[in-house]
Amino acid sequence: MDGLNMSRRIRRTPYTDRVEQMGVRGFSVVNHMLLPKSFQASVEEDYWHLREHVQIWDVSCERQVQIKGPDAAALVQWMTPRDIGKARVGDCLYVPIIDANAGLINDPVMLKLSEDRFWLSIADSDVLLYAMGLALGRGLDVGVSEPDVSPLAIQGPKAEDLLAGLFGEHIREIGFFKYGWIEFQGTRQLIARSGYSRQGGFEIYLEGGHLGTALWDAIWQAGQAFNIAPGCPNLIERIEGGLFSYGNEMTRENNPLEIGLGKFCTLDGSVDYIGRAALQKIASEGITQQICGVAFDGAPCPTCSKPWPVMVGDQQVGQITSAIWSPRLESNVGQAMIAREYWAAGQSVAVHSQDGETRNGEVSGLPFE
Amino acid sequence: MDGLNMSRRIRRTPYTDRVEQMGVRGFSVVNHMLLPKSFQASVEEDYWHLREHVQIWDVSCERQVQIKGPDAAALVQWMTPRDIGKARVGDCLYVPIIDANAGLINDPVMLKLSEDRFWLSIADSDVLLYAMGLALGRGLDVGVSEPDVSPLAIQGPKAEDLLAGLFGEHIREIGFFKYGWIEFQGTRQLIARSGYSRQGGFEIYLEGGHLGTALWDAIWQAGQAFNIAPGCPNLIERIEGGLFSYGNEMTRENNPLEIGLGKFCTLDGSVDYIGRAALQKIASEGITQQICGVAFDGAPCPTCSKPWPVMVGDQQVGQITSAIWSPRLESNVGQAMIAREYWAAGQSVAVHSQDGETRNGEVSGLPFE
Repeated sequence: MDGLNMSRRIRRTPYTDRVEQMGVRGFSVVNHMLLPKSFQASVEEDYWHLREHVQIWDVSCERQVQIKGPDAAALVQWMTPRDIGKARVGDCLYVPIIDANAGLINDPVMLKLSEDRFWLSIADSDVLLYAMGLALGRGLDVGVSEPDVSPLAIQGPKAEDLLAGLFGEHIREIGFFKYGWIEFQGTRQLIARSGYSRQGGFEIYLEGGHLGTALWDAIWQAGQAFNIAPGCPNLIERIEGGLFSYGNEMTRENNPLEIGLGKFCTLDGSVDYIGRAALQKIASEGITQQICGVAFDGAPCPTCSKPWPVMVGDQQVGQITSAIWSPRLESNVGQAMIAREYWAAGQSVAVHSQDGETRNGEVSGLPFE
Repeated sequence: MDGLNMSRRIRRTPYTDRVEQMGVRGFSVVNHMLLPKSFQASVEEDYWHLREHVQIWDVSCERQVQIKGPDAAALVQWMTPRDIGKARVGDCLYVPIIDANAGLINDPVMLKLSEDRFWLSIADSDVLLYAMGLALGRGLDVGVSEPDVSPLAIQGPKAEDLLAGLFGEHIREIGFFKYGWIEFQGTRQLIARSGYSRQGGFEIYLEGGHLGTALWDAIWQAGQAFNIAPGCPNLIERIEGGLFSYGNEMTRENNPLEIGLGKFCTLDGSVDYIGRAALQKIASEGITQQICGVAFDGAPCPTCSKPWPVMVGDQQVGQITSAIWSPRLESNVGQAMIAREYWAAGQSVAVHSQDGETRNGEVSGLPFE
């Protein structure tokens, strides 16, 4: 971890004041905005707490790209291989976005707000500029904008009890990847059962940054009875859980099929979208690599800030893109792109970590059990 | 300065190994890539050294968006209010990019490589996705890509002597914002007389990341006779010099006229581009605010990580977007957006810096003298 120089360009969020007061120990930068990365003495402590209690996460960097107007549904459909035709108001859909070569541009969650208004809750690339370019180029009748919406995630097994007590029992009825509404200080706010962990929880899409501190404080106060702590997406939990990160596990070099996103891709020709021909060709020829888990031995591995070669003998058969020590599995765990001939679970490999070590490892499925 | 968590998503550059070996003390993140922010004991030491000697800067984050094909010139022209029709191969042009409302999307330098091939050397937003969207939407016959090009800047008064000795006297003939070519290890590399300082110098657009360490080492070795040091864009020097930063001084909330970029905007209707009608309307009505300097007193100011209100009495008349202590001027200096009624040089103002202080200041032109 090295120093991050602050400037206006690296945008603060409505919750940054509170995050700093609570002792954040580091940030990342996503969508030109601060994302906290650690609070407790270690990522391990954050991990154990998340699995047992409840955490409040500033995920404002999940910016919303609002697409609104008569051509909104057509534009969103053009951007993704997933069939959005059956989506209903109240649904959240994971919608990979691909380019003309089927390379991944982003993997947002789409929230259908009405028949002509959508939010794309994006990972780290300027989907707003892409959507704006498509709309201008094709002359579509839509507005593309970034509303003043800053998601706050409440994650962990106690999240539902905490939020039901604070905002009403009705939130228990919200299904997975569905959204509902809560009242806060005279405003109506969107709440979804979603989040970047496997421990359950919700995301509140706060509209109105001026309410950020008040929302944080209300949840923090009610959370005292649940042993709440400040937190953030946890690298151990996400690697174990098989949650992928755009820019790490997938880039424009990757197609959605090799990332295991085939179930979100319509390949039968019933839906038209950018990259369809390329994706159909890849599907018919079969993918040549696939995302897998790799558990590997040795001391806790260093930070993975560049791909690590995965070897079988003298041959590179893949690369690890994220890795960390799992205190629960008592092993290093990584997410890796592995060539077809070697992706079967149980394949022995060697991992060249960036500290110069060579470590023995084994390919597995995801999530890690 | 807080910690930056590293991951593959925050891309390393061909020079990061050397930058780390030379004791970089902090980074920023631009275009999903590391940008070093300080090397010496302080930004002040870097500043004095830059003004007197020569520095080597890893500015790989100035990514190139390559636009190539029969419609390349048409697409680039559509993206910018600057008339690119008279540009010649060998020219570098500063080309603001604006949206349909004339809001700034980026402010790259365009390099014309041939009649049908351009690089846009971009600031911090995904212009590649915007250009790709425009091209797909309009059905243009172009390829849009990010080539393996990593600029390395050699800045400071001794830069020309250093590079002429290393690569040949012909580089002295390269005019300001023109480019030429050098030979390096059997490859031909583009070199421009440009850079993000007012101290003179060049940028080498290294094509082929595998050559990064060798290029760095060759310049470093030859630079020993010129007291070379590792460096980076210097906040004191850029604020004094009136160099603006996309995301700091300008966002999509700003039009190019209020940023002083009117000379790059064709308003007579002879060129068609996105946002022309909006920009013509702003020009005819007159801008309501303008970028200025503000010098202000008190102890060296804190880091400016959010806009600071600039007040006249009880009224907010503008905001400071970047600020730092200038050891040469023995004053704090800032770049600020100031309302029309108050933008005259000499206007007294009060600055509310984010440490809670109120400081007396005065509006000035840019650059600071």
